[in-house]
Amino acid sequence: MAEEQFDSLEEKIGKVPKIFRDLKDSNPELFQSVMGLDHLVWAEGCLTRKEKKLIAIAIAAAMRDPHAVRAQIAGAPNLGVTLAEIEEALRVTFLLSGMPAYVHGRAAAEEIYNK
Amino acid sequence: MAEEQFDSLEEKIGKVPKIFRDLKDSNPELFQSVMGLDHLVWAEGCLTRKEKKLIAIAIAAAMRDPHAVRAQIAGAPNLGVTLAEIEEALRVTFLLSGMPAYVHGRAAAEEIYNK
Amino acid sequence: MAEEQFDSLEEKIGKVPKIFRDLKDSNPELFQSVMGLDHLVWAEGCLTRKEKKLIAIAIAAAMRDPHAVRAQIAGAPNLGVTLAEIEEALRVTFLLSGMPAYVHGRAAAEEIYNK
Amino acid sequence: MAEEQFDSLEEKIGKVPKIFRDLKDSNPELFQSVMGLDHLVWAEGCLTRKEKKLIAIAIAAAMRDPHAVRAQIAGAPNLGVTLAEIEEALRVTFLLSGMPAYVHGRAAAEEIYNK
Amino acid sequence: MAEEQFDSLEEKIGKVPKIFRDLKDSNPELFQSVMGLDHLVWAEGCLTRKEKKLIAIAIAAAMRDPHAVRAQIAGAPNLGVTLAEIEEALRVTFLLSGMPAYVHGRAAAEEIYNK
Amino acid sequence: MAEEQFDSLEEKIGKVPKIFRDLKDSNPELFQSVMGLDHLVWAEGCLTRKEKKLIAIAIAAAMRDPHAVRAQIAGAPNLGVTLAEIEEALRVTFLLSGMPAYVHGRAAAEEIYNK
Repeated sequence: MAEEQFDSLEEKIGKVPKIFRDLKDSNPELFQSVMGLDHLVWAEGCLTRKEKKLIAIAIAAAMRDPHAVRAQIAGAPNLGVTLAEIEEALRVTFLLSGMPAYVHGRAAAEEIYNK
Repeated sequence: MAEEQFDSLEEKIGKVPKIFRDLKDSNPELFQSVMGLDHLVWAEGCLTRKEKKLIAIAIAAAMRDPHAVRAQIAGAPNLGVTLAEIEEALRVTFLLSGMPAYVHGRAAAEEIYNK
Repeated sequence: MAEEQFDSLEEKIGKVPKIFRDLKDSNPELFQSVMGLDHLVWAEGCLTRKEKKLIAIAIAAAMRDPHAVRAQIAGAPNLGVTLAEIEEALRVTFLLSGMPAYVHGRAAAEEIYNK
Repeated sequence: MAEEQFDSLEEKIGKVPKIFRDLKDSNPELFQSVMGLDHLVWAEGCLTRKEKKLIAIAIAAAMRDPHAVRAQIAGAPNLGVTLAEIEEALRVTFLLSGMPAYVHGRAAAEEIYNK
Repeated sequence: MAEEQFDSLEEKIGKVPKIFRDLKDSNPELFQSVMGLDHLVWAEGCLTRKEKKLIAIAIAAAMRDPHAVRAQIAGAPNLGVTLAEIEEALRVTFLLSGMPAYVHGRAAAEEIYNK
Repeated sequence: MAEEQFDSLEEKIGKVPKIFRDLKDSNPELFQSVMGLDHLVWAEGCLTRKEKKLIAIAIAAAMRDPHAVRAQIAGAPNLGVTLAEIEEALRVTFLLSGMPAYVHGRAAAEEIYNK
C-alpha cells in the first residue's frame, strides 16, 4: 500500500518524496501524518486534481521557490495539464507577484514540457 | 487601522482598484497599460475566470497578504465561486505555505461569505 | 479527548483554533490530519516545547506575519518562555530578516507580556 | 487596529524606533550596534539620503510589510521626497513584486502626503 | 521597432526576454501589454533610469530572488551604475531584509562587475 | 552553478561571510558595525548559541533561502547540533511555512551531515 502512496506522491511532488520515504522507517508516525495531509490536499473534491495542480504551480512560482516550481510542474503532464493552462495560471502569478515570478514559472514549464 | 480606513483600502484593492481608476486622468498611459494587463490576466481562455479567481485567492493567502486576500475573495461570489471551493484551494496553500496562510485565507473567506 | 486537543492547540496558536474546531464536524478527516501534524510538531523530543515555541515566534516574525506572531506569542507564557528569551530569539530574526521583522516581533511580545 | 495602537506602532517603527530607544538603557551594547548600523545605512555617500529613502519605500512595499511601508514613508517628506517620486519608485515594485505591493505602497503614500 | 524594444529589455532584465520574445508571435496581445508596462516602469520621469535600476536591484535582493538579482544587475553597467552605488543600495536591503539578502546581492554584483 | 562557484558562494555566506571580511579594509566602519551586530546576535545569553543556531536554520528554511540554509547548517555541527535536532526544528518550519520549506531544509541538512 505504502508503495502506491509513494508513487502517487512522486508523481505529484517530484523530487520531494525521497525524504518522506525515509520517514517511513525512521519516523512512521510523522510519515503517516504527512501522507494523510497530502491525501486530503490532493483528493478530488469540489476541485479536480488538475485544478489543484495549477493552483500549486501558481503558488510555488509566486513564492519564487524554484525547487517547488519544478517539483509541482514535474507532476503536471500526468494529470493532463497543458503548457497553455500553466501559462494562464502564471499570468495570475504575474499580477499578484510580479514579472520575475512569472518568468521563473514559465521557464521551468517550458523546460519540462519541451524536453 | 480604523474601520473607515479599512473600507477605503478594500475599495482601493478591488478588482480595478480605485487607485488605478484615479490613474485614468492623472496618468492615462499607465492606466491603459495596467487595464490591458488586467484584462489579459482575467480573460476567459484555457482557464475560466472562476478557476483564475481560485488561483488568485490561493496565491494571496500563500503570500500572507491580508488585503489582497480580502480583495480577491470579495470578487469571488459574483463569479460563482463557493466557499467549499475556496476551502479546497486553500488546502493547497496550507501544503505549500503553512498553516497560518491557510487560516488567514479561510478566516477572510468565512467573514465575506457568511456575512 | 478532542477538547483537550483544542485547549492544547489554543494555548499554542491563539486565534487559529476556531477554524479547526469547526473542521471537527464539517470535515473530521482533515481535522484528524491537522491535529496529528500539530501533535508531531509540538511533542517533546530532542527539543523541548519551549524551544520549539521560540523557533515558531522567530519564524513568524521573520515572515512578517502579524497574526502568526501574536498567535505564537500568546501561547508562550504558559510554556515558561520569558520576554528576554523572545527578545534574544528575535535578534536572530533581525540578522536573517531585517529590522522591521524584529520590531514587529518585539512590539507584539511587549504588548502581550506587559498587559 | 485601534488608532492609539497604530500611533504607538508608528512611533515604534519610525526611523529610530521607540523600541530601540528603550534599548539605550536596557541593553546599551545592542543599542550602539543598531544605531551604528542605522547610521551607516542612511549616511550620505554615493547615494543621497533621499535616494535611499525611495529604495527603502520600494523594498518595504515589495515585501508587503504595511508597517514598514508607513514607517518609511512617514520620514520621506522631511527628506524632500515627493509623492510623484514615490509613485515612480513603486512602479518598479509593481514590476518586481506585483500589483498588490504597488497598491499598498501607493495607498499609504497618498494617506500620508494628502492628510 | 520590436527589435529595439527587445534590445532595450535585454539590457534591463538580462535572461528574461527570451520568454517574452516568444510571446511576440504566440501571444502578441500579452506581448504588447508587457512591453507597455515595462516601458512605463523604466521611462525617465521624476527618477532617472539609473535610480530605478538601483531600486530594482535592492528589491530583487530583498526578495531573495537570485535570478532577478542577477538579471537586474546585468543591465546596471550600461546605465552607468557603479559597484559602490549598488553596495550602498544593498545596505538598505540589509536593514529591511537581513544579512543574507545583502550578501546575495553583493556576491552577484561583484561577480558581474569584476569579471 | 559550477562547483567552484558554489564553493565560492558557500565561502561567502559562512558565519562571517567573506564579503564582510573584505569590508575590513575597504570599509572598516561598516565592518565593525556588522561584526558588532553579529556578536550580539550570537553571544550566549538566555539562549545558548546552539539554540540560536536552530532558530537561524528554521528561519532560513522558512524563508526558502537555500544559501542561507546551507550557510547556517554548515556551522551547526561545530556547535554540537545534531541532525535530529535540526529535523525537529524544521517541523516547526513545516507547520508555519509549508512542506517545501521543510524539504529544502532537510535536504540541505542531510547533505551536510551525511557527507
